[in-house]
Amino acid sequence: MERFSISMDDGLLAKFDRHLGAHGYSNRSEAVRDLVRKVLVDEEWNAGEEVVGVITLVFDHHQRQLQDKLTELQHDHHDIIISSTHVHLDHHNCLEVIIVRGVAGSVRELADQLKATRGVKSSELTAASTGRRL
Amino acid sequence: MERFSISMDDGLLAKFDRHLGAHGYSNRSEAVRDLVRKVLVDEEWNAGEEVVGVITLVFDHHQRQLQDKLTELQHDHHDIIISSTHVHLDHHNCLEVIIVRGVAGSVRELADQLKATRGVKSSELTAASTGRRL
Amino acid sequence: MERFSISMDDGLLAKFDRHLGAHGYSNRSEAVRDLVRKVLVDEEWNAGEEVVGVITLVFDHHQRQLQDKLTELQHDHHDIIISSTHVHLDHHNCLEVIIVRGVAGSVRELADQLKATRGVKSSELTAASTGRRL
Amino acid sequence: MERFSISMDDGLLAKFDRHLGAHGYSNRSEAVRDLVRKVLVDEEWNAGEEVVGVITLVFDHHQRQLQDKLTELQHDHHDIIISSTHVHLDHHNCLEVIIVRGVAGSVRELADQLKATRGVKSSELTAASTGRRL
Repeated sequence: MERFSISMDDGLLAKFDRHLGAHGYSNRSEAVRDLVRKVLVDEEWNAGEEVVGVITLVFDHHQRQLQDKLTELQHDHHDIIISSTHVHLDHHNCLEVIIVRGVAGSVRELADQLKATRGVKSSELTAASTGRRL
Repeated sequence: MERFSISMDDGLLAKFDRHLGAHGYSNRSEAVRDLVRKVLVDEEWNAGEEVVGVITLVFDHHQRQLQDKLTELQHDHHDIIISSTHVHLDHHNCLEVIIVRGVAGSVRELADQLKATRGVKSSELTAASTGRRL
Repeated sequence: MERFSISMDDGLLAKFDRHLGAHGYSNRSEAVRDLVRKVLVDEEWNAGEEVVGVITLVFDHHQRQLQDKLTELQHDHHDIIISSTHVHLDHHNCLEVIIVRGVAGSVRELADQLKATRGVKSSELTAASTGRRL
Repeated sequence: MERFSISMDDGLLAKFDRHLGAHGYSNRSEAVRDLVRKVLVDEEWNAGEEVVGVITLVFDHHQRQLQDKLTELQHDHHDIIISSTHVHLDHHNCLEVIIVRGVAGSVRELADQLKATRGVKSSELTAASTGRRL
């Protein structure tokens, strides 16, 4: 652990402290580290490094052969998929959350293919990290 | 199902078609529907409606009492948490993916509290949907 | 000016320093202040406070009556528009950059109306600030 | 101009129409074109093509030598800067809006250098376009 000091205008610091209180932080240091880590995770993704990502799909399982297609696509990328969690949202709608680890390019490609599949209503790729460089 | 027609300049349409090919779409209609649904999911979150969200945490489980704190925070919100998946990324780092369903405000509050916990390295809240209005 | 200290793991600090070098910062304090101010500007916009915004339009001035419509829309909101800069990008395309100051809701409404005007090819609303609370 | 047709579930279409009304669109075609163009502008920036960008700075002109530094930085990049508009926000705060045209990499580099300058409180780079491919 190293320590370094930050200088900040009183008014800005007071506003930052109010923000921290409102968002559950008890500690400025933790909040600054979180801001820094967020920047570095974005950088890992832009640099095409090994990343961890989460693909979140919402789809209607009544759409013909949709689940077969989604399963097949996932098997084609089994080497980068860690796990897949399925939630039955209602009679029609499913949520599937797929945890992926690989180089940023392959993760994006899989996310694109799942998103483009007919019947997938919503699809998001979330940038996380292996945590090793944070 | 309804149909409506879109007019588009040739050059713009050609560029759109190339984009679709590069991102795995075989069909303009599906691509336009995806763009529309993305707008509507953002709107559900801004309007404070019932939403589905995914909270993705990366943390070091060696941080003292961190896992206890995260578990306790989750139990305090058990009524909006559907499931939680844990991945052991390496000797130090863990990934936890928590699926949540509730009004947008409560989901954001839980995500804030988890993010502000000391030892959580990275935390993202992903906007998904119950799918009912898509 | 106040000073406070931040503790950070060596590895994370080294990565942060490399990032700062690559993005032109000579000083950690300035970089942290920029991260904090970015959070606070977002908050000003979400809270509906008085903000400064920049609306960037790209449009084809050959589109019938487009310039009249854009001018009229701007006159209807003259009380929140500070200035408007016009660039002739080529024979067809114009860029117009409109600087606006008002409550966040009115600024968004004007930006929406300009964006929805037929012939406007691209439109962005950029969140800036009056600077008073930063 | 070409025409193509989109099929959409009634419920989704009704929701889309309500959204369009609330954001000033009188026409689905225009709204879909705007969504498509937004995707293509993002792509121009990611591909490193020639782009148009807007850099928005908020700064305190009382900060020692700040204006000299900002002017010097801009002169070093005069070949990509089209124009610069200055607004006196109050006794302390200035807004400067710089319109830039060049390959995406150079535009980002200039924006980084301006942002990292001590005394610049807020800095945003907005992605616009030459309009030629839209």
